[in-house]
Amino acid sequence: MPKKIVAFGEVMMRLQVPGYELLAQADTLKYSFSGTGVNVASAMTKLGHDGYLVTKLPNNPLGDAAISFLQRLGIGRDFISRGGKYLGMYFLENGFGQRASRVTYTNRLESSFNKAGVSDYNLDLIAEQGDIIHFCGITLAMTDQVRETMKILAKKVKEKGGIVCFDCNYRPSLWDGGYEQAKPHYEDMLGLADIVMMNEKDAMYILGMETKESSREEQLKDLIPKVAKRFGIQTIAGTHRAINSDNTHSLKGYMYKNESFVFSRNLSFSVYDRIGAGDAYTSGILHGELAGFPAEKTVQFAAAAGMLACTIVGDTPMSTETEILSAMAGTIEDIKR
Amino acid sequence: MPKKIVAFGEVMMRLQVPGYELLAQADTLKYSFSGTGVNVASAMTKLGHDGYLVTKLPNNPLGDAAISFLQRLGIGRDFISRGGKYLGMYFLENGFGQRASRVTYTNRLESSFNKAGVSDYNLDLIAEQGDIIHFCGITLAMTDQVRETMKILAKKVKEKGGIVCFDCNYRPSLWDGGYEQAKPHYEDMLGLADIVMMNEKDAMYILGMETKESSREEQLKDLIPKVAKRFGIQTIAGTHRAINSDNTHSLKGYMYKNESFVFSRNLSFSVYDRIGAGDAYTSGILHGELAGFPAEKTVQFAAAAGMLACTIVGDTPMSTETEILSAMAGTIEDIKR
Amino acid sequence: MPKKIVAFGEVMMRLQVPGYELLAQADTLKYSFSGTGVNVASAMTKLGHDGYLVTKLPNNPLGDAAISFLQRLGIGRDFISRGGKYLGMYFLENGFGQRASRVTYTNRLESSFNKAGVSDYNLDLIAEQGDIIHFCGITLAMTDQVRETMKILAKKVKEKGGIVCFDCNYRPSLWDGGYEQAKPHYEDMLGLADIVMMNEKDAMYILGMETKESSREEQLKDLIPKVAKRFGIQTIAGTHRAINSDNTHSLKGYMYKNESFVFSRNLSFSVYDRIGAGDAYTSGILHGELAGFPAEKTVQFAAAAGMLACTIVGDTPMSTETEILSAMAGTIEDIKR
Amino acid sequence: MPKKIVAFGEVMMRLQVPGYELLAQADTLKYSFSGTGVNVASAMTKLGHDGYLVTKLPNNPLGDAAISFLQRLGIGRDFISRGGKYLGMYFLENGFGQRASRVTYTNRLESSFNKAGVSDYNLDLIAEQGDIIHFCGITLAMTDQVRETMKILAKKVKEKGGIVCFDCNYRPSLWDGGYEQAKPHYEDMLGLADIVMMNEKDAMYILGMETKESSREEQLKDLIPKVAKRFGIQTIAGTHRAINSDNTHSLKGYMYKNESFVFSRNLSFSVYDRIGAGDAYTSGILHGELAGFPAEKTVQFAAAAGMLACTIVGDTPMSTETEILSAMAGTIEDIKR
Amino acid sequence: MPKKIVAFGEVMMRLQVPGYELLAQADTLKYSFSGTGVNVASAMTKLGHDGYLVTKLPNNPLGDAAISFLQRLGIGRDFISRGGKYLGMYFLENGFGQRASRVTYTNRLESSFNKAGVSDYNLDLIAEQGDIIHFCGITLAMTDQVRETMKILAKKVKEKGGIVCFDCNYRPSLWDGGYEQAKPHYEDMLGLADIVMMNEKDAMYILGMETKESSREEQLKDLIPKVAKRFGIQTIAGTHRAINSDNTHSLKGYMYKNESFVFSRNLSFSVYDRIGAGDAYTSGILHGELAGFPAEKTVQFAAAAGMLACTIVGDTPMSTETEILSAMAGTIEDIKR
Amino acid sequence: MPKKIVAFGEVMMRLQVPGYELLAQADTLKYSFSGTGVNVASAMTKLGHDGYLVTKLPNNPLGDAAISFLQRLGIGRDFISRGGKYLGMYFLENGFGQRASRVTYTNRLESSFNKAGVSDYNLDLIAEQGDIIHFCGITLAMTDQVRETMKILAKKVKEKGGIVCFDCNYRPSLWDGGYEQAKPHYEDMLGLADIVMMNEKDAMYILGMETKESSREEQLKDLIPKVAKRFGIQTIAGTHRAINSDNTHSLKGYMYKNESFVFSRNLSFSVYDRIGAGDAYTSGILHGELAGFPAEKTVQFAAAAGMLACTIVGDTPMSTETEILSAMAGTIEDIKR
Repeated sequence: MPKKIVAFGEVMMRLQVPGYELLAQADTLKYSFSGTGVNVASAMTKLGHDGYLVTKLPNNPLGDAAISFLQRLGIGRDFISRGGKYLGMYFLENGFGQRASRVTYTNRLESSFNKAGVSDYNLDLIAEQGDIIHFCGITLAMTDQVRETMKILAKKVKEKGGIVCFDCNYRPSLWDGGYEQAKPHYEDMLGLADIVMMNEKDAMYILGMETKESSREEQLKDLIPKVAKRFGIQTIAGTHRAINSDNTHSLKGYMYKNESFVFSRNLSFSVYDRIGAGDAYTSGILHGELAGFPAEKTVQFAAAAGMLACTIVGDTPMSTETEILSAMAGTIEDIKR
Repeated sequence: MPKKIVAFGEVMMRLQVPGYELLAQADTLKYSFSGTGVNVASAMTKLGHDGYLVTKLPNNPLGDAAISFLQRLGIGRDFISRGGKYLGMYFLENGFGQRASRVTYTNRLESSFNKAGVSDYNLDLIAEQGDIIHFCGITLAMTDQVRETMKILAKKVKEKGGIVCFDCNYRPSLWDGGYEQAKPHYEDMLGLADIVMMNEKDAMYILGMETKESSREEQLKDLIPKVAKRFGIQTIAGTHRAINSDNTHSLKGYMYKNESFVFSRNLSFSVYDRIGAGDAYTSGILHGELAGFPAEKTVQFAAAAGMLACTIVGDTPMSTETEILSAMAGTIEDIKR
Repeated sequence: MPKKIVAFGEVMMRLQVPGYELLAQADTLKYSFSGTGVNVASAMTKLGHDGYLVTKLPNNPLGDAAISFLQRLGIGRDFISRGGKYLGMYFLENGFGQRASRVTYTNRLESSFNKAGVSDYNLDLIAEQGDIIHFCGITLAMTDQVRETMKILAKKVKEKGGIVCFDCNYRPSLWDGGYEQAKPHYEDMLGLADIVMMNEKDAMYILGMETKESSREEQLKDLIPKVAKRFGIQTIAGTHRAINSDNTHSLKGYMYKNESFVFSRNLSFSVYDRIGAGDAYTSGILHGELAGFPAEKTVQFAAAAGMLACTIVGDTPMSTETEILSAMAGTIEDIKR
Repeated sequence: MPKKIVAFGEVMMRLQVPGYELLAQADTLKYSFSGTGVNVASAMTKLGHDGYLVTKLPNNPLGDAAISFLQRLGIGRDFISRGGKYLGMYFLENGFGQRASRVTYTNRLESSFNKAGVSDYNLDLIAEQGDIIHFCGITLAMTDQVRETMKILAKKVKEKGGIVCFDCNYRPSLWDGGYEQAKPHYEDMLGLADIVMMNEKDAMYILGMETKESSREEQLKDLIPKVAKRFGIQTIAGTHRAINSDNTHSLKGYMYKNESFVFSRNLSFSVYDRIGAGDAYTSGILHGELAGFPAEKTVQFAAAAGMLACTIVGDTPMSTETEILSAMAGTIEDIKR
Repeated sequence: MPKKIVAFGEVMMRLQVPGYELLAQADTLKYSFSGTGVNVASAMTKLGHDGYLVTKLPNNPLGDAAISFLQRLGIGRDFISRGGKYLGMYFLENGFGQRASRVTYTNRLESSFNKAGVSDYNLDLIAEQGDIIHFCGITLAMTDQVRETMKILAKKVKEKGGIVCFDCNYRPSLWDGGYEQAKPHYEDMLGLADIVMMNEKDAMYILGMETKESSREEQLKDLIPKVAKRFGIQTIAGTHRAINSDNTHSLKGYMYKNESFVFSRNLSFSVYDRIGAGDAYTSGILHGELAGFPAEKTVQFAAAAGMLACTIVGDTPMSTETEILSAMAGTIEDIKR
Repeated sequence: MPKKIVAFGEVMMRLQVPGYELLAQADTLKYSFSGTGVNVASAMTKLGHDGYLVTKLPNNPLGDAAISFLQRLGIGRDFISRGGKYLGMYFLENGFGQRASRVTYTNRLESSFNKAGVSDYNLDLIAEQGDIIHFCGITLAMTDQVRETMKILAKKVKEKGGIVCFDCNYRPSLWDGGYEQAKPHYEDMLGLADIVMMNEKDAMYILGMETKESSREEQLKDLIPKVAKRFGIQTIAGTHRAINSDNTHSLKGYMYKNESFVFSRNLSFSVYDRIGAGDAYTSGILHGELAGFPAEKTVQFAAAAGMLACTIVGDTPMSTETEILSAMAGTIEDIKR
């Protein structure tokens, strides 16, 4: 029986220069629509669940295009509100080797989503129907109305017995007031969450917690149990990622649950498009929990999901459970005939 | 000896779905940069002058791309200011037959240009160097700073002996307060202008002038001399355009100067991209005046320039004097080998 | 309150050479997925209802791509069965002027849909949930299992109080046995249908009915009431279409209901892609009926929907109620800003 | 039993801007390879014969690409010589409406073909194997070596009993010395030819013949019999073409044989790419003669072939006998399913 | 003097998603036509011989496109039969890193080729004209008629003094009955063949031969001489291939002739499209034999040909003898100016 | 205050097959315009100076396109002469792995630039306005007129107090008479130059100088001071480059000035398009000198500029001072948001 996974978040239009030209050299863009919520809702749909997005989109051809794109991914349109004027956008120029990729944003704070408030959504219906609701720190960095809506929706879901998932996902450029401004909002959300995506850096920088450990893994082992205890969080999970000298990336996942840690293998792999890997990992954790996988399998599954998301064009994970399990098994065939 | 033609105006990014798909069907866009000022400066450059644009663009990859595009057209970068955060954009879906084209705007009022004021430009230098300065009613509809800059620059140019050209170009959707709000600003600009692009509708609706005539041409003949007299305008010119039942368009130009009217033939032609035809007409008038063409030749030349602009991909006129004169002569060859 | 419109039919992969090259000249194809059922379900979704498709698709990347495409159109995946091996395909080369378009099919009878039978679908659930069920004569021309499924499903829907719509859509190339083979199956479906799409030719050729009239319109007026009476059909509708000498197409719609005829104006228009116009007309009739439009408005609305479908890229209608009403009003703007 | 049709001529690389952009606006080109000889050899292959080209191509990647392209058309590579340094090229910008298409050439006289002479080809083998050999006035305008090769080859073919076809195809821009320079070479070729493509203008301007008639058709009827008699030509054929005010083109073919004229209907049609229509007409005449069609059918067939060539992308005719006969019959279907 | 190389086999349409998108993400395909026979006939043509294909293609636009594509490669159309209804197709989605490529087939057994039998080809003419005839194990896995045609044709060629080449090329997914079903057919073909492409695995699995050796090379050295002896085969050749951990591929070729083995160096290289490398190797062996290369040069040449085929877009080898000899010499220049 | 950098040189049209297909496989080309002078003028413009090109271009659509492209790069059109007939072109097929890239030229010696002489340019004006003038050994290899123009212009610039920069850039294929023919011309230019780009190989092969050292670096240290002394050159700079076994490239820059050497770090990096790296290095040296960087910073900056040019699509460097300084600092971010 598929579960209803509801993600709350903004839909951004991604306008990407194909190949490796700069915006000043090219004249063509590929567009798609994405966002953390989109990625999670889509990934969960590919894993056999029914993904929904709670968002607001303008009632114009750009909004129509966004909805078509979300539907293509299998995301349900039931909780999408229409109205407002604009859609957030970003332009992406691909880097190559020593030249970094560049992202240029339009005025995101004027978007339909960031101008929307509690009355724009049927929060009670959403809370009633959703089995899991997913929130993210990027959304938390937006406007006061957005933050208010997040907290109210989280509470309503919790009251109805749904699971609240919160991905810390701190982006320095989005908080004018820095960690100080962010901290109380993060504390509110952590207090409402059942499953949290974070690592030791979030604990140290956002929550201001201290540790005497110096290695990342030891810091993690020191701090995460304290966070879980302080906020009463059932499950905390996250990743450590690195870029290797041969241009491959590495990803190692962890999950803390029932007062114990499990870690995935440290995976190394070539990357086509690294955006969305974290959301794939989150989806792997959620799916493992819903499917009742043992913790070791869940974290391995989530890490493989994150790895495969890096081999897919665009932000949004597209892999099925079968494909992820096959990647976990590690028998990579040359061509599947 | 080429003249320096300086246009003041906003640069918009045009994002067009190729072919006839809707945004909800496609995944690719072609982009270019345009605006009335861009079109006039480019057209004058193709006609052998040196075109410049006075505008402000963000100091990011989108601004760089805009400048590359303007330079490609031969427009000088000397008077372009950098800074601010955003670039105005519009999305264009091509119509077909009974289905109209659709334009969707982003938040244009937040653009670098519309946030800029007098101190963002070296107005004295511009006034000193420009032989002709071109303004447009679209720009006049923007913010108070923009309007202030327009008027100060027009005055400075006038003081230095330059020619001020103003294209009325009234766009209802841009004036929240309607004609009432627009009127005093238009009166200010008309009072400063030497050459004005307008027709009888502008006189009736913006300026509130009345006429007893009922045909468009008679209204024109009644009102335009009154406008010229009231505001002390040397030359007024404009067009009457129509879409014919066989999908061709018609264009007939006029010019009022030295208290007499000249009219072009009524041209009928197929249209590839009709945006920019008015700016091509304006450029034809300016070029005819600078080149000392007889009035009949100037208006014929301007009409042919407007017609050819409709056969060119994109907003921006690309025709040379030779090509326009050849189109005036009307001997259309099949293939030029 | 949106209605559930369920269409039963095959999904075909359309592989089209872009532009006007032949398959023997090009090396690129654009692909999409279509079919009468797809078109009707999609069109009804655009009109504000919830469209569903009852079909079977292979459990492979082609089937996944088809589902993604259907979802993009807003069609629900709930009644789509997976399995079997193949997907029907056709290649389309665009004609130009005196050179006709060409369609080349793959082996359609081996498709998952045409190999499927009653047990492949949850017919009871479908019958329970659907407000309208749509069938088509193309599907009726396929295999015995397909025909059996159609008839059983139509009966179940009828029992549950749903509306059965049947589009005669006779394709000579699909019936090896000609009209003789087709007739009994058509009679069965007409006996089960509440709303039927057909015209006088279907009555004469498929049903073998005779008339002394010679004009198409008189034949229609003679025969359609007899068909309605004989099969107890509530509403019959259809179109007369023609290609004019100036390459425009003409379409005139009719509807027979409550023993009286209404006709639309005869619309003439340029055509971008004429496939799908009939399905748009059908959807217009269904929407008019559901919305309680007066008969005159329904038939005018349906004709305008058919016209607009000819201006859209691909087989599938994409117009909203607002857009169709605006086209009915006939005020075609040049560019919608 | 298919005949061997051998065309002698240059292969040009055609580099075309896609769509309607200028070279100064675009950054992409489509390339193909063409020439009168290519067109005739290809058209005859599509009509069921074996087409060959006698030409010389550089032994580099451009020459390889040209040969691949010719082979794709079904033209045999047996008589193609390799060597020299360059390939003639032309750039094509598509016109639109009142804006004419533009062609820009590279230095064609330095091409492998135009630098080649008699010793570069196995003329005896070609003469022995060819049933028909085709020459053209464009080639005749090139270098002295090329002209020498043409005349020697024509003589050898004639001695072996093959048919010599010569298409006058006079291009003013290619003859520095004008008609005076061209005349003796044309007379040589006419003296060697069995089938000639020309019309009254060639007789008047190249051969300097005079007539008292004033209409084109009367001039034709006066002069062509005199040409046939003077040079002992078995068959003369050609076309009158016009561009109509509604942008359609008209074509009317004629053939003079056994001292009598036959004319085709005057066909009017939309044009996609008009280059190559004359070569298609020539091929229709040759095929009609080889197939033993009655004169009326031959000229009708040739005219229909010319018309269809205008609906095909690129210079080269692609229509089969069946398709041309179907176009002659005039029953244009909308879509061939 | 070029030799006639005739390959017997099916032509498949390859429909590939450009870049790295899935079919469910993209909307464009690149198509080409390939197959083992196509690859060998094309490769031999590039090496200076005349390649022919014996196959059957439908008489429709897809068949025309296939023939155009084969001709482009320089393959002669003389032995291609037309008729039947369908063309086998496969869709290819490119993998990236840890995500494997995926191939999806249409119903290949219904293709014109697989429905064809002995009477569809002029086997006597083919046998008379071909110097070498090439068969492959993929074709052997198809239908009974196909197998019968293969064996009759092989016998006829042998009788006429031609060389029979057979590439074992066992594909498990194509034999429902597994090795047991395949064995007698392979034995028949091996009994007719002069040159065989295989390695130790074919001997062990298809022929059921046993060896006590454990390394691949020792198994090869043990078994291949036995195969040669048992079936009276003059020359046996093949490769060992591996995918290295740094994503490069390795290839080492061998040839057994006159009772002795020669091996190529073990080449390591980056791969663009690995399909067709085996056919390039086969062609290298055939060319070496025809050209009278010493065995060491032949096997080195074949290995280099296989390596270069992996750097070419599409299935089909495109390298000339000069290019392969240059790659053997190993002096890779950066850019050839 | 930006400096005027004037480069003298030919503009070539670059026609590149996209992706990895051969010209014989593809049908599309991307075009751009480049040349050493273009690259240096563009790079200096990106670094904040005003770049100009002294060249001659045909007065046709190809010349227009070239100028548009140069303008897009920000290069001034003031010193570009129009006339002559042709533009030099080269076709580029990308290599992959063991398959080298291939370049095929058209007849470059007939180009407008190579046919132009002293009277085609306003050399006095150029000499008066330019702060730096750049010449290159490729241009020196062209025609006598071109060489004469180079030397006269260099002298005039020197007289006016401008800086003469000469890049040796010896291309063996362009000198029919080899080093012997080249030597006197190189000596002339070295005698006129203030800044020279070269390394020890140029000294040994072009100038015929001898050294007893065997390592490249020792040879450089031995010979370059002698060259500087003999020709009175203020600054000599250049690079040593290598292709590593893992397909990365290495670049190490040097500069000799005030009788002492400075060397950059040896940079290793992935390469997208290596053409233009040398010109980026030159521009880095010129910019460092103009900006008054210490020698160590200049050579490091130039090396980083050369490295970044290898990550950019096309021949022409596009990096700003900020980007190059950031690459020098070596902190490569993954994505710049």
